[in-house]
Amino acid sequence: MANTRRAKTMKGKGKPAAKTGAAKPVKAQRRAATKRMVFAFEAGRADGNAGMKALLGGKGANLAEMAALGLPVPPGFTISTEVCTYFDTHQRRYPAGLEAEVQKQLGRMEKNLGRRFGDAKNPLLVSVRSGARASMPGMMDTILNLGLNDQTVQGLIAQSGNPRFAYDCYRRFVQMYGDIVLGLKPESKTEIDPFEAIIERKKHERGVRLDSELSADDLRELVGEFKAAIRERRGVAFPEDPYKQLWGAIGAVFGSWMNDRAIAYRKMNNIPESWGTAVNVQAMVFGNRGNDSGTGVAFTRDPATGENVFYGEFLMNAQGEDVVAGIRTPLPIADLERENPKIYGQLAKIRRTLERHYREMMDIEFTIEQGRLYMLQCRVGKRTGAAAIRIAVDMVRERLIKPAEGLLRVEPEQLNQLLRPTFVAAEKERAVRDQRLLTRGLNAGPGAATGRIAFHAEDAEAAAARGERVILVRIETSPEDIRGMAAAQGILTARGGMTSHAALVARQMGKVCVAGCDALLIDYAAGQMRVTGTDVALKDGDSISIDGTSGEVFLGEIATEPSEVVRVLVDRSLDPKHAPGYQLYDQLMKWADRERRLKVRANADQPDQCANAIAFGAEGVGLCRTEHMFFGEEKIGPMREMILAGTLEERRAALAKLLPLQRQDFEGIFREMGGRPVTIRTIDPPLHEFLPHAAAEQEALAHEMGIPVERIRERIEALHEFNPMLGFRGCRLGIIFPEITEMQARAIFEAAANVVKSGKAAEPEVMIPLVGHVKELQLQADIVRRVANEVMKEKRVRLKYAVGTMIEVPRGALTADAIAGVAEFFSFGTNDLTQTTLGVSRDDAARFLLPYVRDFEIYDKDPFESIDQEGVGGLMRTAVQKGRGVRPQLKIGICGEHGGDPQSVMFCDRIGLNYVSCSPFRVPIARLAAAHAALGVGADSGTKD
Amino acid sequence: MANTRRAKTMKGKGKPAAKTGAAKPVKAQRRAATKRMVFAFEAGRADGNAGMKALLGGKGANLAEMAALGLPVPPGFTISTEVCTYFDTHQRRYPAGLEAEVQKQLGRMEKNLGRRFGDAKNPLLVSVRSGARASMPGMMDTILNLGLNDQTVQGLIAQSGNPRFAYDCYRRFVQMYGDIVLGLKPESKTEIDPFEAIIERKKHERGVRLDSELSADDLRELVGEFKAAIRERRGVAFPEDPYKQLWGAIGAVFGSWMNDRAIAYRKMNNIPESWGTAVNVQAMVFGNRGNDSGTGVAFTRDPATGENVFYGEFLMNAQGEDVVAGIRTPLPIADLERENPKIYGQLAKIRRTLERHYREMMDIEFTIEQGRLYMLQCRVGKRTGAAAIRIAVDMVRERLIKPAEGLLRVEPEQLNQLLRPTFVAAEKERAVRDQRLLTRGLNAGPGAATGRIAFHAEDAEAAAARGERVILVRIETSPEDIRGMAAAQGILTARGGMTSHAALVARQMGKVCVAGCDALLIDYAAGQMRVTGTDVALKDGDSISIDGTSGEVFLGEIATEPSEVVRVLVDRSLDPKHAPGYQLYDQLMKWADRERRLKVRANADQPDQCANAIAFGAEGVGLCRTEHMFFGEEKIGPMREMILAGTLEERRAALAKLLPLQRQDFEGIFREMGGRPVTIRTIDPPLHEFLPHAAAEQEALAHEMGIPVERIRERIEALHEFNPMLGFRGCRLGIIFPEITEMQARAIFEAAANVVKSGKAAEPEVMIPLVGHVKELQLQADIVRRVANEVMKEKRVRLKYAVGTMIEVPRGALTADAIAGVAEFFSFGTNDLTQTTLGVSRDDAARFLLPYVRDFEIYDKDPFESIDQEGVGGLMRTAVQKGRGVRPQLKIGICGEHGGDPQSVMFCDRIGLNYVSCSPFRVPIARLAAAHAALGVGADSGTKD
Repeated sequence: MANTRRAKTMKGKGKPAAKTGAAKPVKAQRRAATKRMVFAFEAGRADGNAGMKALLGGKGANLAEMAALGLPVPPGFTISTEVCTYFDTHQRRYPAGLEAEVQKQLGRMEKNLGRRFGDAKNPLLVSVRSGARASMPGMMDTILNLGLNDQTVQGLIAQSGNPRFAYDCYRRFVQMYGDIVLGLKPESKTEIDPFEAIIERKKHERGVRLDSELSADDLRELVGEFKAAIRERRGVAFPEDPYKQLWGAIGAVFGSWMNDRAIAYRKMNNIPESWGTAVNVQAMVFGNRGNDSGTGVAFTRDPATGENVFYGEFLMNAQGEDVVAGIRTPLPIADLERENPKIYGQLAKIRRTLERHYREMMDIEFTIEQGRLYMLQCRVGKRTGAAAIRIAVDMVRERLIKPAEGLLRVEPEQLNQLLRPTFVAAEKERAVRDQRLLTRGLNAGPGAATGRIAFHAEDAEAAAARGERVILVRIETSPEDIRGMAAAQGILTARGGMTSHAALVARQMGKVCVAGCDALLIDYAAGQMRVTGTDVALKDGDSISIDGTSGEVFLGEIATEPSEVVRVLVDRSLDPKHAPGYQLYDQLMKWADRERRLKVRANADQPDQCANAIAFGAEGVGLCRTEHMFFGEEKIGPMREMILAGTLEERRAALAKLLPLQRQDFEGIFREMGGRPVTIRTIDPPLHEFLPHAAAEQEALAHEMGIPVERIRERIEALHEFNPMLGFRGCRLGIIFPEITEMQARAIFEAAANVVKSGKAAEPEVMIPLVGHVKELQLQADIVRRVANEVMKEKRVRLKYAVGTMIEVPRGALTADAIAGVAEFFSFGTNDLTQTTLGVSRDDAARFLLPYVRDFEIYDKDPFESIDQEGVGGLMRTAVQKGRGVRPQLKIGICGEHGGDPQSVMFCDRIGLNYVSCSPFRVPIARLAAAHAALGVGADSGTKD
Repeated sequence: MANTRRAKTMKGKGKPAAKTGAAKPVKAQRRAATKRMVFAFEAGRADGNAGMKALLGGKGANLAEMAALGLPVPPGFTISTEVCTYFDTHQRRYPAGLEAEVQKQLGRMEKNLGRRFGDAKNPLLVSVRSGARASMPGMMDTILNLGLNDQTVQGLIAQSGNPRFAYDCYRRFVQMYGDIVLGLKPESKTEIDPFEAIIERKKHERGVRLDSELSADDLRELVGEFKAAIRERRGVAFPEDPYKQLWGAIGAVFGSWMNDRAIAYRKMNNIPESWGTAVNVQAMVFGNRGNDSGTGVAFTRDPATGENVFYGEFLMNAQGEDVVAGIRTPLPIADLERENPKIYGQLAKIRRTLERHYREMMDIEFTIEQGRLYMLQCRVGKRTGAAAIRIAVDMVRERLIKPAEGLLRVEPEQLNQLLRPTFVAAEKERAVRDQRLLTRGLNAGPGAATGRIAFHAEDAEAAAARGERVILVRIETSPEDIRGMAAAQGILTARGGMTSHAALVARQMGKVCVAGCDALLIDYAAGQMRVTGTDVALKDGDSISIDGTSGEVFLGEIATEPSEVVRVLVDRSLDPKHAPGYQLYDQLMKWADRERRLKVRANADQPDQCANAIAFGAEGVGLCRTEHMFFGEEKIGPMREMILAGTLEERRAALAKLLPLQRQDFEGIFREMGGRPVTIRTIDPPLHEFLPHAAAEQEALAHEMGIPVERIRERIEALHEFNPMLGFRGCRLGIIFPEITEMQARAIFEAAANVVKSGKAAEPEVMIPLVGHVKELQLQADIVRRVANEVMKEKRVRLKYAVGTMIEVPRGALTADAIAGVAEFFSFGTNDLTQTTLGVSRDDAARFLLPYVRDFEIYDKDPFESIDQEGVGGLMRTAVQKGRGVRPQLKIGICGEHGGDPQSVMFCDRIGLNYVSCSPFRVPIARLAAAHAALGVGADSGTKD
């Protein structure tokens, strides 16, 4: 990641490193370095460089890089991660020769600094820190001031002329060492830290309140009492020999790689155990040696906004831990310019050097010791989505990086932060303070929403019609609820996963959604919802707020605000000229579109969704689900008539009513899409989804249709399925009831003809779902093509259209060669393909899939969020190969939810798809992910094992 | 199939045909014969032979074969099927040169018989008959007596001296020709045949009742009236020119290949359109030329029993159609010996000749014309299962065929007829006569059963305990019903397909089952069942009878009887010495076992099922479903406790109660299986299947367990799944609740240890279900192996065991290489693999899968009955290759229902499986199918397209 072209090696003494060295892959580096276990660094020279993170860990590699750049890094050395691996697999023994190496490096440090390790007069003190390849903040151990004992502390007193400082260093060292290396820790959760207990007792004895009020003598006594406690409780003596201290510390740091905390963290973050940690041994510098000393942390730009300002804070006469402890409040870095212009000037120069060198926003730690500046750490700085974009765009404009590099500086998922409404920050903080956080669910549809509870879709609609904001709260949602979902600000469900009906539809609509919120006990009959583990009982009409980005559910209202990008693109309430954040987004997207190979389409069922899709940059509709249209107020009636029809004639009569309504929908979509391709899927869900489930609704429908309610109930009973996912749906409907496909094809082509005759373009692609056998597709394609010809003849117009299929059951993928003989395009329905390939129902998977990923690491990620590349992905590759083998120009896309997942988008690029299609609000994310893919990101990733 | 070594060719004039000619495959023959369109035959000589069915059709090929054998075949010729194909694809035109060929052959016939076609004095009359490669009885057209007109009829009168006979021939010819060639047919369903109407009018005029009472003059008049009707209603003149007649007839026969009836028949019987039909033109012989004439049909052995006797019937002074019309009753063939010993002697000799020649039981047609015998047809005779076995075994004993050929003479499925109880034939006939046939369902579990209706499993048990025979009638069954199913004589369900729960369990138990009987409207609350379209309403306790071989459901009782084989092997109520049918079965099975490569195991869950399995020849248990055990009276309680447990401790306590019960079950199975391998699957179904669904039962359970019923209801609600097939089941249960797997492993290994310590052998194979990712298997295998080691240590015994997995989701097959790294065996669960690969729930598929096979020919066969070789089979091949690539000795079997389907068994042999496993009652079928596979049957079959 970092540019190491200007790094200098220890051997080369200031000569630039050979380019090849920096570019060598880790394995080759490892091989070349097998004999070297210890890597030295000091200002101006280093054995390592920033490219050697695998071997030196992040901290060690960047220390080497900074040292080679000539920055004021205290001298030290890094023991490689390979030693850690050796240590772990050889009963905590070290490779032969390590001790001699360490000895040699200590000698070099002694020479460099003119101090000696263990010397009673002018002792060299060191820190021992872990540093793994990936950042594991707070997970591993650090020991400072190592080398102190009853003799050397006298030397430190002599050096510093400050006994209190020296004894404070000493007692801190004994305390850390006693804890980390010798294991003197609280024995139960209720016990306080034994060292802190001794300090408290001492302060009590002395009648003081603050540590800083303890005298040098008090601190000296503390050292003795600490050692006594260690001996007494751990049965070991504190080692006075600095070499013993050092090896104890090195062993503890290597050992910490395998402690429970570290193992748990690695699991959560997918960090392989085999990586190991490095150990950094470095000369101590002290920020607490008087008022000309100090310590600080800084970012080379503002990590929250990305603004190109030096951003950070510092504290004089303090050590890093004082800053963390929060006893004194650090000052903004700008104040340093006033307090110490020389040091600030040095720092500002280092800031420039690092940004030029790394061409990145860096996060640094520094210490000032008696007026001298030392650099202790540097790494790439974490940032918000907004900052990431601003930094990337600015750095391109500053010519630090190329646009392509700028693109790689923004994680596709970070764009989400730019698109979603959020709670007004202060209001949310207040809600948390007021303990209004009720529970958490799955963050299924990002953004923030607030409103009154509605338990029924109709109530939500009615309330919205009255101008109220509502949150639709359901055990789970079904297609019946769609209009209620559209009317609501957000959706909250007690059941269902990240790709449940609620989650899928919410994301497509751009609605906020918290799904699978187990703690909710919803009682529709009582119009009430309880929250397990609390006394809270909420009624219909009560206010709640949900955060679909975090999954949080709050009691009461919390004010929200739409994002700037949305105000420009969707609401059109903001002039782009006055939207600097939008302009940055727009610039980044332009670069992304220049790089990417994949086309990006949107899943959209209605003209308004199409408008959003285009605003977000969609190049077509990849999935128009015709069934969603059937839930429109005027359409559900004829649809139900169609389903309840007893004869072909009755069914045809109902379909005849639906035809003009569908035609109108399609016409609206074609006009909105302005000639971009529109993939329309013929009816897919099982018919029972369209019938009412509540007795009252059934009776109303019976009354409306003038038929006995028994007929409706019997039909619903007859349509009941054990596994509707694998039931009478998809093309199976169109094959048994060809008149439905015929009506839909007619609506599509008549709509297209009307648009074309009005002088506009329309390009329908008719997609047949759930095809497992080429004959299924053939039967349906025959109908579609026949109707297309009929309409073209009737309307005297020539239409450009295609007929293709979803690949969403394994048999479709396995026989893709035969299917490509009929299909003009494929679209992977990876939701269903994942369900069938894995044999997992996404609606029922929560009970085991979460532990599968979190506890058992069976899958790296939820396969419904990111494509299971080994299993499902293998079938996709097969389908692409077989399909293109028969029809080389076959257009292939994906229209499952995975189309909006960056890793999946990259996979789709890698296997040669033509486009991805996702919900409108994820189109920008897919565009950026596609650009990343074209730039080679993820090319070596794949299955973990 | 037929031995043609002694066939003589036309060219060779009596010399034996070259061996190579007869052995040439069809394609080569086709190529060699491209120029020849017409194939002559006459007694002693033929251009064709029995091996040329593709080109000559079955009838033509066998006529040639008989002619070449020197049998008295009237001379004639066959126009090949290639001409039919040409005709169909060239607007009903003929290839150049055909007319000259036909002319030439007519000339040969004229010369042979000394008659001339169209000659007014001594006319040659011919029949024109279709004859396709496969028998299509009654589907295509035949015209007799062609060549008659107002002139030639005079010649026939002169020849026969019988004007009435001659005019009767003439009027029959005009009638057939008018119908078939000129299209004078009834115009509506209510209209009677126009020719019959004229005859009726004539009889009315003459005041007679029977056709035979009409005089020669009457018949002559009829001819005129027929011709007038044709002219009037079809607008064409009846052709007097015999050549015109002939070409009209040839065109009509070729054209009949594409008529609606024939197309429908081909669809139903999977006969490709491309085969075409041949046309056979043959000199007429008349069985109705006086008392020294006659006609008959015969089988060379008894087609019902297989007994080696000449079996058939004949009628003197009659034509074939008279026999069919049923006006006169034919006599048994034995009577012919008395009536006409000379002819009988000739026929008996021909019977021997044909059996020696074809080495098969043949079906023949013959005509006697004025004391001379003519052979008109011969083909392989259809027979019952019992007859097939007897004929096969007898022919081997007679040294007509080798044992391997004997095996091929019995269709595996035919064995079923030997195993199933049947209705006493006369009783069933009476029931049909009395119109007690209520409706039909799917023939899901063959055999016949009779008893009183029980709508609930408990009622069935109670009734059985009282000694009553019951039929369990359910909308559908669930695992809860297992004990009721076991207690019942048979199971009848209103829903579910051939592999529904009811069907699967019934077949495994060897129970009679009629499933998916749509017409039944079952009202549990009322304890009543209605039959749609009838007034019948049956109550609990009313008697019904079901035929699981035909799918029929009857009102009232019909007596049944077990089969002889079952009485010997299962009931042990019959001494094999007194069971000749059993002895034949036994002989055939011995030959089968000698040939086959595949091992055959049984799916068995209980010791008694194991005993049956061994009786039927199983070599191990391929699938022991442990969950079925949990439904035992004493086990369901602790099982429910386990599921309802709120904590790990409660769950462990319940499991501790289950452990000894499971151990006892396994011990019984191991002892019964006597060291044969037993594959035990860990728990598989979703837990909700074990909980009671009826409110009363839930309350009873709550009372019993001393917990509130709400807790049970909540748990059932929490366990509800949208798609249980894809839900929380299989190894997912064992991963989330490892203590269940642990208990089951302990029960298995403790049972095995007990058996081994008692000096017997036990070989458990522990099978983990529903594995999609190798890590799932690894987690479960680790538990199983750990427990095995613990038990071996505790019991101080060494156990031979293996751990393997089901391959039943596509991901398992796709990653079989990784999985084989852990699994010691694979077993294909093709039921679930079919569901997931096709995305079809077998319980919900009836609505579309039946039309898919029957109407749309999407699949050749129901993929749940016979493996979908292209889709599911493709995945199986992949899994075998990948698995054996990693572990060459990997043992692979199949334990889905397909393991008992002959075509699937052959497929399993072809892809290299080690064994198949099926329900005990299908083991003999699988053994024979495996022998067929080893003998190369089905080797060239596969996907149709």
